[in-house]
Amino acid sequence: MDNSTAEKGSPGQEQQAAGVGILLQIMMLVLSFVVGHVLRRHKFYYLPEASASLLIGLIVGGLANISDTERSIRAWFNFHEEFFFLFLLPPIIFQSGFSLSPKPFFSNFGAIVTFAIFGTFIASVVTGVLVYLGGLMYLMYKLPFVECLMFGALISATDPVTVLSIFQELGTDMNLYALVFGESVLNDAMAISLYRTMSVVRSNDPSGQNFFMVIVRFLETFVGSMSAGVGVGFTSALLFKYAGLDIDNLQNLECCLFVLFPYFSYMLAEGLGLSGIVSILFTGIVMKHYTFSNLSENSQHFVSDFFHLISSLAETFIFIYMGFDIAMEKHSWSHVGFIFFSILFIAIARAVNVFSCAYLINLVRPAHRQIPSKHQKALCYRLRGAMAFALALQSVHDLQEGHGQIIFTATTAIVVLTVLLIGGSTGTMLEALQVVGDGHDAHLGEGFEGNNGYVPTSREEDETTGNKLRMKLKEFHRSAASFSEIDRNYLTPFFTSQNGDSEDEEDDPMPSSRRGIYHGHS
Amino acid sequence: MDNSTAEKGSPGQEQQAAGVGILLQIMMLVLSFVVGHVLRRHKFYYLPEASASLLIGLIVGGLANISDTERSIRAWFNFHEEFFFLFLLPPIIFQSGFSLSPKPFFSNFGAIVTFAIFGTFIASVVTGVLVYLGGLMYLMYKLPFVECLMFGALISATDPVTVLSIFQELGTDMNLYALVFGESVLNDAMAISLYRTMSVVRSNDPSGQNFFMVIVRFLETFVGSMSAGVGVGFTSALLFKYAGLDIDNLQNLECCLFVLFPYFSYMLAEGLGLSGIVSILFTGIVMKHYTFSNLSENSQHFVSDFFHLISSLAETFIFIYMGFDIAMEKHSWSHVGFIFFSILFIAIARAVNVFSCAYLINLVRPAHRQIPSKHQKALCYRLRGAMAFALALQSVHDLQEGHGQIIFTATTAIVVLTVLLIGGSTGTMLEALQVVGDGHDAHLGEGFEGNNGYVPTSREEDETTGNKLRMKLKEFHRSAASFSEIDRNYLTPFFTSQNGDSEDEEDDPMPSSRRGIYHGHS
Repeated sequence: MDNSTAEKGSPGQEQQAAGVGILLQIMMLVLSFVVGHVLRRHKFYYLPEASASLLIGLIVGGLANISDTERSIRAWFNFHEEFFFLFLLPPIIFQSGFSLSPKPFFSNFGAIVTFAIFGTFIASVVTGVLVYLGGLMYLMYKLPFVECLMFGALISATDPVTVLSIFQELGTDMNLYALVFGESVLNDAMAISLYRTMSVVRSNDPSGQNFFMVIVRFLETFVGSMSAGVGVGFTSALLFKYAGLDIDNLQNLECCLFVLFPYFSYMLAEGLGLSGIVSILFTGIVMKHYTFSNLSENSQHFVSDFFHLISSLAETFIFIYMGFDIAMEKHSWSHVGFIFFSILFIAIARAVNVFSCAYLINLVRPAHRQIPSKHQKALCYRLRGAMAFALALQSVHDLQEGHGQIIFTATTAIVVLTVLLIGGSTGTMLEALQVVGDGHDAHLGEGFEGNNGYVPTSREEDETTGNKLRMKLKEFHRSAASFSEIDRNYLTPFFTSQNGDSEDEEDDPMPSSRRGIYHGHS
Repeated sequence: MDNSTAEKGSPGQEQQAAGVGILLQIMMLVLSFVVGHVLRRHKFYYLPEASASLLIGLIVGGLANISDTERSIRAWFNFHEEFFFLFLLPPIIFQSGFSLSPKPFFSNFGAIVTFAIFGTFIASVVTGVLVYLGGLMYLMYKLPFVECLMFGALISATDPVTVLSIFQELGTDMNLYALVFGESVLNDAMAISLYRTMSVVRSNDPSGQNFFMVIVRFLETFVGSMSAGVGVGFTSALLFKYAGLDIDNLQNLECCLFVLFPYFSYMLAEGLGLSGIVSILFTGIVMKHYTFSNLSENSQHFVSDFFHLISSLAETFIFIYMGFDIAMEKHSWSHVGFIFFSILFIAIARAVNVFSCAYLINLVRPAHRQIPSKHQKALCYRLRGAMAFALALQSVHDLQEGHGQIIFTATTAIVVLTVLLIGGSTGTMLEALQVVGDGHDAHLGEGFEGNNGYVPTSREEDETTGNKLRMKLKEFHRSAASFSEIDRNYLTPFFTSQNGDSEDEEDDPMPSSRRGIYHGHS
């Protein structure tokens, strides 16, 4: 990876060092998979796979640190933000979109967007302001206000990996799952966007209208990325519908092209200066919904397994990589106060985020679809992961050495603590809040599924608080419901080679009709 | 990849440049796949897929060169030898081993090893000596003798990709295919090994016993790498036999582990200072033969498709990457004489290699298994590809600037010319030599397959030339034949969960027996 190492030492030696470095990484990967498997088998939820991977990375990194490992081998373990953002993150996010069941996601879309965009914004600002005030009051090291906001932005990115795998295994309520999942993914995008905007604000002169600029810039980015992602997804659907690649001996070509599209979407968005994460997420959703059914049956099996495999490898690797890097980097542990108070402040900010957003959402939702208080509590209980870590590492480059270092150390501590403590106790928490088990919340899911374009509630409409807002949000809800109509009547017939009334026909091989299309169009 | 770029410019801009760079690469990949598909469909063999990819890379690289593309985007297109050796090459070589049908390979093992090791050595030395003599006679630029030998070594690495795909499509004689294939893969390993040894010789003081050292060092590397590869393969077979991962919901874990083993083997060998290529090749052979049948049926389908996909992507990418880099790098075209004469010399060296080795092999082979003269001619007709290019690029770092540059330019020219001319005319050549078509050479394959531990020939044994050598080689042949006995009676029952008499049972799902093993051992 690191070209600068290629200059020193003979090429043979360099390659040997790289070999040892990668060998160690593979061994840790294998170990993580095996340990994770054993833990899952014995239903030991106090140490989820991600925490185990992080611990393995920390331990091996610590060992490598006290032994006199060669510099050229160590170079292979430095966490490169670029490598993370360009190669490890895309498959994970795509798999999230690809494995998503669209119904709960889209029916909670309003709530998810509220939590992810408005909520993350609130959380960032609250954290930033509290950290700034803490600095003013000599509770902790004093950072400039913009840098406090940068820290607030990066530390508000919650990690999807660990909690989701526990949710999946315990089988929790679909709506809660959709909320947690959707928020994690979109709020990563929001956090990056906020962080970068703050970074730009910091390097230019800060003026009054920046607050407005941040919001406009974010909306621009979000809508642009979403359009790019959806566009790429639809393009792929049309390509596979008409190219006639779903005959037997072209399976490899079909899969090669299919596998390249998500990456194309990510890089297109990044190349346009938009958010690759948002783009690839929507590409994943669209490709699963439309393109996927245009593939031959064998390729369908293959690509599902492929993305699952790649994202598992990337997920596990991220935690190992992070653990190793944490053990190897220099940290400034002198600022224990900063770490302690920032943990306190992000907890406060998270609570403000969740409860205020939930209040807004419950204002517009009918009685049977209110977000219950236990779900709100479960939403507070989130850990910080690789995204926060990667952005903090970037801040070491971006900010003057001391400040970036403090932010990095604090983030590192927060990541390790939350992954180990919150990750380890999520199972217990979910059980304590009684949101575990598929059955018992079924009425909630049912009520909403059967009632997509729902009837007006009996609550009085002349309530003053947030009435206008509520009307707008309701309109949005209604448009989301009518979207499934459009999908069934226009999009699905246009982008796939099946009729609109499919839904459960998707597993049907239908080789004859496919062959027909192939002969007809190519 | 390139960390040095991460320092300059804001992180957002850097990521944008990376996005544009990778986006371009993906677009070229997609274009190559589509063009390759169209060409294959119209049976147009004058422009194989690899040549098309190279041309696409050259054209886009040329366009990027005359336009004022940003430096940070260009950085994404520099051919990094490290990236090539560590990430692009391993999947291709593993897939070679994995898709290999072991019978023709092992029954021609003696011939393959003769061509790859002895032949490549001869070709390197002949090329090196001729280039040195050419320099002494003022025909071409005069290089030191060791550097001539380095050039000879790197330019003797023949490329497997293009020719093999044409062979597969035209359906040529199995023995010829096995020879060409086996030689390409092993001679890459030999060429790297020779190049590195020469590189070491060059930096130390050259003494008289270096010639001997080269041979010992190479044999050490070869045997060591082979053992490492076979060892890793057998380990994986035992792991999958006893770990009980072949039940349904563990398919992802099973595939993750399976996918990591080849890479483990490659890095283990590199980490030990051995040849990763040789190691991963044998891991591929062993894993296909033993480990593969211990997988669940779904995973078997998946991993076959997976390695096929990954290696297709890597193969196509290598040629694009090479084309782009050729168009972007600085070249010293002033040494046209050097290029012209080196092409002449490598043709001579290749002929010396093939005909002398074939003579030796034919000495020991019985009459019905002689390598016919048309096969020998087909073997001469080989192109130089990514391996030669990567080593030449390394020589720019290794040698004083002018010399490395000359070698690099000459190699580039040779690679482009041979890929386009030889790659384009291979189909015609094979047809002209009448080695095309499955049927017409069947007696050759048959004769050998039914006669593995073959009867002594009627030729007089008291012929003086190479009699001793012949006896030794015959012994080697006999041991190769008895190997299949050992395999059937001991190795297959020990390393797989099926009985020795399988061979055509491999496609049999056998879920019940697997489940039994699972319950018994885990």
